[in-house]
Amino acid sequence: MAKLSGFPELLPADRAVEVAVVDALRRVFELHGFANVETRAVEPVETLLRKGEIDKEVYVVRRIHDDGADNGTSRSDTLALHFDLTVPFARYVVENAGRLAFPFRRYQVQKVWRGERPQQGRFREFTQADIDIVGDGTLPFHADVEVARVMAEALAAVSAVLGFGSTSPLGGGAGPRAAEPALFTLQVSNRKVLEGFYRGLGVEEPTAVMQVVDKLDKLPGERILELLAETGLDETSARACLALAEISTDDTSFVERVRELGVEHPLLDEGLDELATVVAACADVEGVRVTADLRIARGLDYYTGTVFETRMTGQEQLGSVCSGGRYDELASDGRRTYPGVGISLGLSRLLVPLVANGLTSSRPVPSAVLVAVTDEESRATSDALAQRLRRRGIPTEVSSAAQRFGKQIRTAERRGIPYVLFPGEPPSVKDIRTGDQVDVDPDTWTPPAADLTPTVVGLGHHSKETTP
Amino acid sequence: MAKLSGFPELLPADRAVEVAVVDALRRVFELHGFANVETRAVEPVETLLRKGEIDKEVYVVRRIHDDGADNGTSRSDTLALHFDLTVPFARYVVENAGRLAFPFRRYQVQKVWRGERPQQGRFREFTQADIDIVGDGTLPFHADVEVARVMAEALAAVSAVLGFGSTSPLGGGAGPRAAEPALFTLQVSNRKVLEGFYRGLGVEEPTAVMQVVDKLDKLPGERILELLAETGLDETSARACLALAEISTDDTSFVERVRELGVEHPLLDEGLDELATVVAACADVEGVRVTADLRIARGLDYYTGTVFETRMTGQEQLGSVCSGGRYDELASDGRRTYPGVGISLGLSRLLVPLVANGLTSSRPVPSAVLVAVTDEESRATSDALAQRLRRRGIPTEVSSAAQRFGKQIRTAERRGIPYVLFPGEPPSVKDIRTGDQVDVDPDTWTPPAADLTPTVVGLGHHSKETTP
Repeated sequence: MAKLSGFPELLPADRAVEVAVVDALRRVFELHGFANVETRAVEPVETLLRKGEIDKEVYVVRRIHDDGADNGTSRSDTLALHFDLTVPFARYVVENAGRLAFPFRRYQVQKVWRGERPQQGRFREFTQADIDIVGDGTLPFHADVEVARVMAEALAAVSAVLGFGSTSPLGGGAGPRAAEPALFTLQVSNRKVLEGFYRGLGVEEPTAVMQVVDKLDKLPGERILELLAETGLDETSARACLALAEISTDDTSFVERVRELGVEHPLLDEGLDELATVVAACADVEGVRVTADLRIARGLDYYTGTVFETRMTGQEQLGSVCSGGRYDELASDGRRTYPGVGISLGLSRLLVPLVANGLTSSRPVPSAVLVAVTDEESRATSDALAQRLRRRGIPTEVSSAAQRFGKQIRTAERRGIPYVLFPGEPPSVKDIRTGDQVDVDPDTWTPPAADLTPTVVGLGHHSKETTP
Repeated sequence: MAKLSGFPELLPADRAVEVAVVDALRRVFELHGFANVETRAVEPVETLLRKGEIDKEVYVVRRIHDDGADNGTSRSDTLALHFDLTVPFARYVVENAGRLAFPFRRYQVQKVWRGERPQQGRFREFTQADIDIVGDGTLPFHADVEVARVMAEALAAVSAVLGFGSTSPLGGGAGPRAAEPALFTLQVSNRKVLEGFYRGLGVEEPTAVMQVVDKLDKLPGERILELLAETGLDETSARACLALAEISTDDTSFVERVRELGVEHPLLDEGLDELATVVAACADVEGVRVTADLRIARGLDYYTGTVFETRMTGQEQLGSVCSGGRYDELASDGRRTYPGVGISLGLSRLLVPLVANGLTSSRPVPSAVLVAVTDEESRATSDALAQRLRRRGIPTEVSSAAQRFGKQIRTAERRGIPYVLFPGEPPSVKDIRTGDQVDVDPDTWTPPAADLTPTVVGLGHHSKETTP
C-alpha cells in the first residue's frame, strides 16, 4: 500500500486545481480552432525508440500470460507506454492523413510515462498538454507565430487560474497585481539565428557548438568558453558565440544587439526576421513574459527553426516547463513529409511542486450548498430542495446524517462548503463564514458567483483560505 | 504503423463527441457534489490480483532496462496497468483516509487496460466513468438511492448530448421525440431480494443459484431450469427462481409480483423495501428508463445489496454498458472497513460502436468562424479580427493561405466551419450554408448559439449533417 515514488496522486482539493488548469488550456486552444485528440497509451517499442534513442527509459507492457514467452525476442511486437505525445501524434497523423484537413491544429492532454529516477519535477507518470500545427508537405512560417501566440495566451490563462496576472476568471483569491513579475517567461529562440551566426563565424559544425551553448544554464561562461575551444573554435569566435547566447530581450531589440556583434550570414538574417516576427506577435499578450533568448538551443532535439522554452518564476530549478519548436519533418510515411511546429506544457512538472508548496483549492468538493436534513423521515424534502438548486446549476449535496443542525453545519465547515440550506416554510440559508441566516426562495436564491465553484488558493504569498 | 486491435482511436470529429459526453457526465456528477479524482495508471500486480482472480488478463509493466532482471521473481515489486477504477480507488481511499471527509463522493474518468481478446464493445484500452460513495465504517442505505439517481441523471444527460431524449443541451440535431424509447435502461436489482427469496425456498447455497440466474440473458429459460436442478433445487423451487428472475417492472409493482410467488423471508422483505425505494427515487428522472429487473444478479462480483446493469437500446449485444452496486467492503486496511456503492459507465464500450455506426459531430474543428486573408502582407489585419471574435468566446481560425476567396470558402466548407469573415471596411460575414453575406461589426457580431460549438449528429435515424 506504500505510495509509489514518481507516480504522484492528488487529493481532491488539489486535483480541482489541475482540472481548472486543463479547462483554461482547453478554452484557449479551442478558441484558436485547435481540435482535441487522444492517442492510445502504447506504441510498438520500435516506434518509440526510432531516433536512435536506445537508452530512453520506456516502460515495456506485456500481457501477464505472455510473460517469458515472447520476452525480448521481437521488438516489432513489443508494446511500450508512450514517453511523450509527439511520437504518437506523428504516428496518428500518418495513419489518418487521408482523413485529416491540413494544416491540422490539434491539442492533446494526456499522461505519459518515463522510467527515469524520480526527482523534483521529474516523474515516472505525468501529464503533458501539447499543441501542434502540422502541414502536408509544407507549413508556412506563420504557423510558428500562431503556436507561440496560442501558448503565450495559454500560459497567461494558467497564471490567471492560479491567481497570478491581471485577470482571474475563476473568481479566485487574487485581484490584479500589476507590480509582480509574470509567473511564466516564454523564451523564444531560432536555430537559424544560431546556425547562421556560427556559419558566419566560419564554424564547421554548428550542432556541436549549439550543444555546448545549450548548457549555459548549468555551467559558468568560462567553462562554456573552454568547451567551445574543445570543439575547435578560436577564442574570438568562442567569445562571440558566448556573447550571442547572453542576448535576451523583452522585445525585438535583440536584432540590433546581434547585429552589433558584426557577424553576417543569409541564414542569420532569415532567423532574425523569423524570431523578431514571433516576439512582436506575442508583445500584446498580457499576463505572460515573452522574451527572445538566444541561449535557448534545444540542443538534443530535431528542431530546424523556432525553438521554445519556458521558465516559471520562483521554480527555476525545474528547468523548462513548456518547450518545443519547429520540425521540418514531424512525421513521414516515406512518400509524404509532414512538417510541424508545436509546444508541450509539462502540467505535472509545474503543478505538483506548486501543490507541495501549498497551492490548492478552497474546498475539496464541488458543492456550494449543503442541504440539512431534519430527520430521516423528511430526507425526501431535503432531496427535493437540493434538486431545485441543481436545476439552476448550483452544486449541492444533502447531509448524510440527520444529526442536530449544529453538527451538520460543522460538516459543511469541514468540507469548506460555504452555505447550509435548512428546510422549512420558508427554507433559510446560512453563510457559515459570517453566521448570517436569511429566508430564501429555493427557486431563485443563488450563491454569489465567487462561491459557486471552488477557487484556487495558496500560491506564493497568498495564504490558504480557511473557514472560520 | 498498422492499427493495434483493441486500442481504438477516434478522429477529431468523433473525439469531440466523447469530450461532449464527458463534459455532460462531469456536470451532473459535480452538481451532486462528487469530487473528481485521478489515480496512477499502475498498481502492484498483487493488489490487482488480490481477490483470487489469477486469470485476469492484466498488462504487466517493466522498465525496458529491467528486462529479464526481475522478470517474474517477485509479485510485490511488479507493476501492472489497472483493469478498472474500483481497485485503485479502494487503494486511494485507504492510503488517504485521514485526509478525506466521509462519506466521500468521487467521480473518476480514466482509461483502463485489459489483455482480453478484442471484440465488439470489448477493448484492450478503454475509458470508464465511475462514481462511488464510500463511508468510513458505515454507509447509510440512502447512498444507494443517491448513486442510482445520479447515474440515472447522467445517462439522461448523455442521451441528450447524443440527440436522444427531451432536451439537447448542445443544441444538437434532435429536438424532443417523445415517442421514441429511452436510449438507456438502468436495471436495478438487489442481492437481498434474490438471496432472501432463495433462503425462503430453503436453498442452501444462494450464490450458486445466483450465478445460474445471471445467465438468463444468454440462455433460454429451459436451460436455466436444468442448471438450477444441477445445483440441487427441486423443480418447484427452480421454477419459482426462474419466475422471480423474469419479473421486470418500470415501477414498484414488482413488489406485488414477488409477493404473489408466496415466498417469505426477512431478508427478502428488506431487499424489496430497498429496491422499491431506489426505483421510486428515480421515477421522475426524464430521458432514461429505470426498471426493477430481478434477473440482474452480478453473479461474479462482491455485491451485497443493490446491483445495477444498463442496456443501450439498439445495442443490446454489447451487454451492460453501466454496472455496479453496493459493496459492504469496498476497502479495508485491516483496522477499518470502508463500505461503498458505485456504478461504472463503460464510455468506450458505448461510444465506439455508435461512432462506427455514424455518430460524429458536425465539424472536426472547434472553429465557428474562418477569417479570410486578403494577402500575406495583411495577415496581421485578419489575425486582429480573429482576436476580436475570440475575446467574446467565439472559436475562430485564420485562413492558412491567402488564396482567392472562393478557395478559402471551400476550405471552410471542407472543415465544416459555418462562417467566413472577410476583412474590409466594414468586414462582412458569409454563412457558407446559405451563401448569405452581410456587413458586420466584429465587436458585436456573434454566430447563433447552435453554430458556436460543434453539434452531435448521426445517431440512429438521424442522417449526418452535411454542408451544401
